[in-house]
Amino acid sequence: MSNVIVINPFEVPAGQEDKALELWDKFAGYFRAQPGYISSKLHRAVSPDARFHLITLSEWESAEHFQAALTSDELKKLIESSTDVPPSYPGVYEVIRT
Amino acid sequence: MSNVIVINPFEVPAGQEDKALELWDKFAGYFRAQPGYISSKLHRAVSPDARFHLITLSEWESAEHFQAALTSDELKKLIESSTDVPPSYPGVYEVIRT
Repeated sequence: MSNVIVINPFEVPAGQEDKALELWDKFAGYFRAQPGYISSKLHRAVSPDARFHLITLSEWESAEHFQAALTSDELKKLIESSTDVPPSYPGVYEVIRT
Repeated sequence: MSNVIVINPFEVPAGQEDKALELWDKFAGYFRAQPGYISSKLHRAVSPDARFHLITLSEWESAEHFQAALTSDELKKLIESSTDVPPSYPGVYEVIRT
């Protein structure tokens, strides 16, 4: 099975970047510890008018590993204990053109 | 000036992937020829329920180079001569966490 890329664009309300980064660090700690996690990069928009102020790209060993990480009880509890989680649109991707 | 990453998520309607890829190739030919362009990768969602079926990541020498490419008369003509261009949300990004 080949590696996959998870891309997750976040709609961060104006003025909420600090709070969003704090949450990102908290959730990143969880994902990093999951089986199949390889690496991730957090992208921040240079200009304030971007629709998605933050976008994560992560590499995983497989879509199944990521799905398992996404549906765990541990993540559910982490979400329930967090406030102001920005809307996001995660998807699993493969590179088809370079 | 350091390199920037341009991320562009596309909302591709169901069944329109072939048409969207054809357009992507057409526009990629334009962007590749512009000053400051370095490279790009096209990501396709593995599952059909992803909000953004296609996402481009491109590297440019600077935000100014990308803005110049985005506002040229040549691109304007290319867009005017194209149909069914999917909605997209391009932004210029820098990596702030790895």
